[in-house]
Amino acid sequence: MNISARNVLKGTIIEVTEGATTAHVKIQVGDAVVTASITNDAVKDLGLKKGMAASAVIKASDVLVAVE
Amino acid sequence: MNISARNVLKGTIIEVTEGATTAHVKIQVGDAVVTASITNDAVKDLGLKKGMAASAVIKASDVLVAVE
Amino acid sequence: MNISARNVLKGTIIEVTEGATTAHVKIQVGDAVVTASITNDAVKDLGLKKGMAASAVIKASDVLVAVE
Amino acid sequence: MNISARNVLKGTIIEVTEGATTAHVKIQVGDAVVTASITNDAVKDLGLKKGMAASAVIKASDVLVAVE
Amino acid sequence: MNISARNVLKGTIIEVTEGATTAHVKIQVGDAVVTASITNDAVKDLGLKKGMAASAVIKASDVLVAVE
Amino acid sequence: MNISARNVLKGTIIEVTEGATTAHVKIQVGDAVVTASITNDAVKDLGLKKGMAASAVIKASDVLVAVE
Repeated sequence: MNISARNVLKGTIIEVTEGATTAHVKIQVGDAVVTASITNDAVKDLGLKKGMAASAVIKASDVLVAVE
Repeated sequence: MNISARNVLKGTIIEVTEGATTAHVKIQVGDAVVTASITNDAVKDLGLKKGMAASAVIKASDVLVAVE
Repeated sequence: MNISARNVLKGTIIEVTEGATTAHVKIQVGDAVVTASITNDAVKDLGLKKGMAASAVIKASDVLVAVE
Repeated sequence: MNISARNVLKGTIIEVTEGATTAHVKIQVGDAVVTASITNDAVKDLGLKKGMAASAVIKASDVLVAVE
Repeated sequence: MNISARNVLKGTIIEVTEGATTAHVKIQVGDAVVTASITNDAVKDLGLKKGMAASAVIKASDVLVAVE
Repeated sequence: MNISARNVLKGTIIEVTEGATTAHVKIQVGDAVVTASITNDAVKDLGLKKGMAASAVIKASDVLVAVE
C-alpha cells in the first residue's frame, strides 16, 4: 500500500501502553521519539510490540510549525 | 509557551512554497524531511524562510502507525 | 504496508482537482462519494487519476458522529 | 445545522464501547463499517445507542488516499 | 443535526477568502477571531458570506493546550 | 515559542479529568468553554490544574463551519 501522507518516519517501537480504549505507541525515529495515540484495536490488529520496526505516518495538514 | 503536543521535532527549514491560501513548509529533522501544510498567513506572521531553525509540532492523536 | 487507521474504504477515483498547492480527490465508495484534500505532491507521487482503484483512509479520532 | 464537512456518510450504529474518557462508535455505512473515536460525553449527550440512525462526519483534510 | 464535536462556538463571519481549492473563513466569536480552513466547495454549498451567523465546530481531539 | 496555528484562544482551566491514557481539559474562553482531549502525559508535563491560565490552540484546518 502506498499512501498520500507526506510524512512516513521509519523507526522502532520502544513502548506500547494500552488504556481502556486508547493506546499510546512510542517510536524511536533517529534521535527523536514520536508518540502516536491510536486505538487498542489497532495495536491488536497490527500486533504492535516493543522492538518492532514501524513507521509514524503523519498527514502534512496535521503538522504545525513553531519557532523560538 | 509550552504546548501539550507530544511531538516537537527540532530541525531546519529547507523549503517554503506558498500557494493561493495554503503553504508547504519542509523541515529537515535529522535524516528525515517533515512536510507541514499551513496557511500563507502563518508563514508571513512567523517570517518562515529557508535556513531558519524551526520545529514540526504534531499532536499524538494525529500520528498513525504503519508496519510492513 | 498495514496501517493503524481503523477506516480504509475501498473505491474508485472519480475526480482529481489540483489547486495551487492542495488537491481534491473524490473517491466513489459504494453509494457514497468521499472527498480527500491532499497535497498536489501526493497526487503526483501516487499517480492518482480518474478511474484508478484507491482507498480513503481515515483515523478513527478524525470521525465525528451526527444524529438528526 | 449544515456543516462544511465534505463527507457525511449516513448509516446505522452497530456498536458503542465506552472507555475511561474515550468511546468508540461503529457505524454501518453500506457495506463498510466506519469507526469513530469520540468522547464519552458526546455519547451521553447525543444518546448514541446500537440501532440508531447516525452519520459519520469527516472533514476532507482528514482523509488520506492509499493505492495498492 | 446534532454533532458529537464538543466545541461549537457561535459567532459571525467577518471574512471569506477563497484560494484555488481551499478557502479561509474568519468567524468573530466573542472577543476572539477563529479561522477555519475549508474547501471552496463548502463555502459555495453553505453560501458563506461576511455578516452571516455561523459556528466554528472543533473536535476535542483537535485542541491542544498551551501555557506560558 | 511562536506557533503557526491560527487559533490561540486564551482562557482559564476550569476542569481536568484524567482517564486511563487520555485526559479532558476544559478551558473557559470568554463566554465559551473549549474542551481539549489530550494525553495524561501532557497534563502531567505541563502541570495543568483547575484555575491555571491556559490557551486552547487549534490549527485552522481542524475547524469546521456550521450554519443553521
